[in-house]
Amino acid sequence: MVYGLARRELRPKVPLRPGEGEKHRLTSLEGLAALSLDALSSVAYGPEAIVLALVAAGTGALTATLPVTLAIVLLLASLVVSYAQVIAVHPDGGGAYAVAKKDLGPASSLLAAASLVVDYVLTVAVSLAAGADALASAFPALAHDKLPVCLAGLALLTAVNLRGITESARALMLPTALFIVAILGVVVVDLLRSHPAAVVGTYRSFPAHESLGLLLLLKAFSSGCSALTGVEAIANAVPAFRTPRVKRAQRTELMLGGLLGVMLVGLAVLIHRDRVAPRGDVTVLAQLTAGAFGTGWPYYATNLLVTLVLGLAANTSFGGLPVLMSLLARDHRLPHLFGLRAERPVYRYGVAALALLAAFLLVTTDADTHRLIPLFAIGVFIGFTLSQLGLVRHWRRERPAGWRRRALINGTGAVLTTLAGVILLTTKFLEGAWVVVVAVPLLMLLFARIQRYYTAVGEELGLGRIPGPPDRRSASLVIVPLGEVSKLARYAIGAALALGDEVVAVAVHADPEKQRALREAWDRWNPGVRLDMIDSPHHSLVQPVVDYVRRAARDGRQIAVLIPEVEPRHRRYEILQNQRGLLLATVLRARTDVVVCMLPYRLGL
Amino acid sequence: MVYGLARRELRPKVPLRPGEGEKHRLTSLEGLAALSLDALSSVAYGPEAIVLALVAAGTGALTATLPVTLAIVLLLASLVVSYAQVIAVHPDGGGAYAVAKKDLGPASSLLAAASLVVDYVLTVAVSLAAGADALASAFPALAHDKLPVCLAGLALLTAVNLRGITESARALMLPTALFIVAILGVVVVDLLRSHPAAVVGTYRSFPAHESLGLLLLLKAFSSGCSALTGVEAIANAVPAFRTPRVKRAQRTELMLGGLLGVMLVGLAVLIHRDRVAPRGDVTVLAQLTAGAFGTGWPYYATNLLVTLVLGLAANTSFGGLPVLMSLLARDHRLPHLFGLRAERPVYRYGVAALALLAAFLLVTTDADTHRLIPLFAIGVFIGFTLSQLGLVRHWRRERPAGWRRRALINGTGAVLTTLAGVILLTTKFLEGAWVVVVAVPLLMLLFARIQRYYTAVGEELGLGRIPGPPDRRSASLVIVPLGEVSKLARYAIGAALALGDEVVAVAVHADPEKQRALREAWDRWNPGVRLDMIDSPHHSLVQPVVDYVRRAARDGRQIAVLIPEVEPRHRRYEILQNQRGLLLATVLRARTDVVVCMLPYRLGL
Repeated sequence: MVYGLARRELRPKVPLRPGEGEKHRLTSLEGLAALSLDALSSVAYGPEAIVLALVAAGTGALTATLPVTLAIVLLLASLVVSYAQVIAVHPDGGGAYAVAKKDLGPASSLLAAASLVVDYVLTVAVSLAAGADALASAFPALAHDKLPVCLAGLALLTAVNLRGITESARALMLPTALFIVAILGVVVVDLLRSHPAAVVGTYRSFPAHESLGLLLLLKAFSSGCSALTGVEAIANAVPAFRTPRVKRAQRTELMLGGLLGVMLVGLAVLIHRDRVAPRGDVTVLAQLTAGAFGTGWPYYATNLLVTLVLGLAANTSFGGLPVLMSLLARDHRLPHLFGLRAERPVYRYGVAALALLAAFLLVTTDADTHRLIPLFAIGVFIGFTLSQLGLVRHWRRERPAGWRRRALINGTGAVLTTLAGVILLTTKFLEGAWVVVVAVPLLMLLFARIQRYYTAVGEELGLGRIPGPPDRRSASLVIVPLGEVSKLARYAIGAALALGDEVVAVAVHADPEKQRALREAWDRWNPGVRLDMIDSPHHSLVQPVVDYVRRAARDGRQIAVLIPEVEPRHRRYEILQNQRGLLLATVLRARTDVVVCMLPYRLGL
Repeated sequence: MVYGLARRELRPKVPLRPGEGEKHRLTSLEGLAALSLDALSSVAYGPEAIVLALVAAGTGALTATLPVTLAIVLLLASLVVSYAQVIAVHPDGGGAYAVAKKDLGPASSLLAAASLVVDYVLTVAVSLAAGADALASAFPALAHDKLPVCLAGLALLTAVNLRGITESARALMLPTALFIVAILGVVVVDLLRSHPAAVVGTYRSFPAHESLGLLLLLKAFSSGCSALTGVEAIANAVPAFRTPRVKRAQRTELMLGGLLGVMLVGLAVLIHRDRVAPRGDVTVLAQLTAGAFGTGWPYYATNLLVTLVLGLAANTSFGGLPVLMSLLARDHRLPHLFGLRAERPVYRYGVAALALLAAFLLVTTDADTHRLIPLFAIGVFIGFTLSQLGLVRHWRRERPAGWRRRALINGTGAVLTTLAGVILLTTKFLEGAWVVVVAVPLLMLLFARIQRYYTAVGEELGLGRIPGPPDRRSASLVIVPLGEVSKLARYAIGAALALGDEVVAVAVHADPEKQRALREAWDRWNPGVRLDMIDSPHHSLVQPVVDYVRRAARDGRQIAVLIPEVEPRHRRYEILQNQRGLLLATVLRARTDVVVCMLPYRLGL
């Protein structure tokens, strides 16, 4: 959603070094192709959401599609102008969270963070669900298996992202360009025809449940606002543009707004003219596609393209959430771990968490786009509003030339998005928006509690104060747990002798015979190190060693336990080795204060 | 199944010290109550399996239930006499695996181990499925939710076993005793009635698909043999009996055989007399219960008791598999890890593996008892046959007085169980027995490969040979990765100074400002240790440290990296701390040969 750009290219807080990779950066047109995918793909579900809301007042009410769409496009225009100013003020990108933190203070930034997290999860769920709808429009056999289709898609995205992809903004260009051509093609060709080339889907009659009143119009408006998600992506990615960065990004933002507006109005005109009502399991966009291109290969190609683009839109969240999490971690609002976004294993946590949450949403809503949409747009609108409020604050503080006009633009934007957000929330509260109302404050609370904990720990560790000089202990004792005399024992004793003033080996054996054999071998080897033998009648390894170490730790020396590990060459043998050593290390670290050392011994096998 | 006894009481290879816990040991009657649960609970599905096989020739064929049952009871008698001898020869218990290893050699012991593993998994699945059948007989509303019922039961067993239970053989006595009373009550009361007290379930007609030929009788016989599973439990648990151990265990084995035989024949007589055919979703045993007690509370109580006992029978596998796995691990046929059965985390692996496999079986067979039974008895019969073949070998080798007679008894048993096994396999091959035919050799192969790997590693490590003297390196360098100056840094540097000849601190920072601040704080602190600063423009922590360590390791000194870890007092804060250190430790261990040390620093928080 927000960071529609490659992880490698977009590092909000680390500007690339001067001259580094300038030619890899984006021109305005390239930026449009690379960054608009998320926003443009929402034409696949936005207009449909309007139609579905209006049809509650019968098919006659569909005439209201056009005015509702025009209201949404007006809001879009305000957003685009506002974001052009966001780009100028925050050329480092950073998104709603960074902006809110800088201009609005901690509470607002927590709100922004929480709503963004919710948003990432919903982007994945909604995009996949809408993608499944598009696929089922082309292949009706899938109509009753949308959930499995979505979960399969999610599994694919998760697998690809767990493995790590050298994601590139440029890879998104071709599908986005094709998508733009296809949708504009649908609009133009269909407008040129006197009547639809083909009608797909099975007819359903829609008796009017309610009259076309203000409430219904507001509902249709708020549902349709889901088409606006993603317009902030360009403002978050300014560092990815070629110089002059701000100008190019602003131009791209305006182009995106123009394109999205034209598409939305064009589709609304067609819906209005062709009286397109929800039909069987075919999406509104697919019906319009059939109306323009007939039901031959262009119909299938367009639907597949829509599916692909929606899948790619879902994928942007997998790139974006880790970035946000790393920002939060650096502000002590998430486990510090997530600050290490560049490390593969850490990144995987974020991917797995996102996948699980999205899967949960998909399963609970049965992958029904129309049940997901009420949850969707709210988070986005919180972000919109906070970004613009931040700018109003900025203008009032800085007071550059014409600041009043600028503040007015952003203020109007903020009022409009707040209004839209409130409409969304009130009309959709019982239909699912309450979930967001519950989830966002809970997330804020979590972030705040984590921050409080880290502050308290910093106090306890005396961060920022100079501690006393380090202890200089008299001596150290290194304890080496061993099972038998071998090259491994030789290697471990050697390392221990380099580290400790005194070294002692300890062996745990239940079997008196094995004890005797080991003692004998040890005496023959005679490495100049004492061997202590621990009896363990219950075949336990860990507890006897822990007890031994605790006894040894009583005399105040620095104790280290050196555990040699056999490292097999092939990963598949790992379960066969080391597990006992790891277990011992884990328990020693949990129950004693000694230094626990692991010494790898590499096998040729 | 096999080790029906408590983990704490039964340690096959570690006899308790003399005098230890003799009064906690079992008398014959107590042993019967504690150890027969697994065998006796199979009357819940054994007779039903016979009826279901015979009814393929129409309800008239049910008259064959009695003769088929008599044949099975004959086999039971042979088994009981054989196992009385097993008890005398192997008073240490140990089961088919230990016996096969001692008397028959490696290949047979692998076969025994593989079939036992299959058996444990199937005991869990079959007992749960039969338990769900019994429950659904009492509460017909559950009839279409048997799979969820089974999975819920499995989840409960898994949770209880993951937490670890102080399992006691004595706890099993009361349910077993009640079960014996209930089943014998059904037999006696029903026999005394002239016609059934009540008829439950909905009538189904069974047209004859085939005639009642030899093949069908053999099928019924092999299905009914599932009633014999569990009779080996007593022989495996001889050490749990009070002295004279062998006598008491033998007496218990005979009592078990007598009881099981009486139950099976009694139920068969009733099935024969009342012409009990499979009816709707009510088990044969539940129909007989209704016939004896009517449909009042005794009916519900009996069904619930049967469910409970079947659940407890499933639970015995959770106690038994870890014991077998530890025996296999000590023979280098499973990862050595599993030899540490006494360690909670290790034990949990076994529990989780068993639960997953059982869940898989339940889901693929839709928790249908009759689809599981064909897989079930084969593993047991392999164990029966191997135990008795082992004894024949034993008698021929030792040649005590009367060895020919004894060998004849065990030989006859082996021939009968082989015959039954072959019948099972051939009549049930396509119905599921093939799964066992595939799984057992695969498991044997796995065990053999693991053993081969360990042998090769032992070669490489020079196990059993005396290595050269350990190296005495000239010096050691301890590297301490640090983020800031704090009490933690003081503690870590202190420990490092005790261990290393030279100590150096290293800090990774992306932000030049933080670098400067740290350098300044370090200089003010002045702990007498050099601080090296590593630049990391990509916010990566791990790779820069690894590179630094690799460079330091070039000069041949013993290198240790000491990673201080903040240990929070509460487990819930663990995700907030240490994760970076753990990640660094993992990567260092995988990619370098240095000693990696963890130093815990305990927080009050």
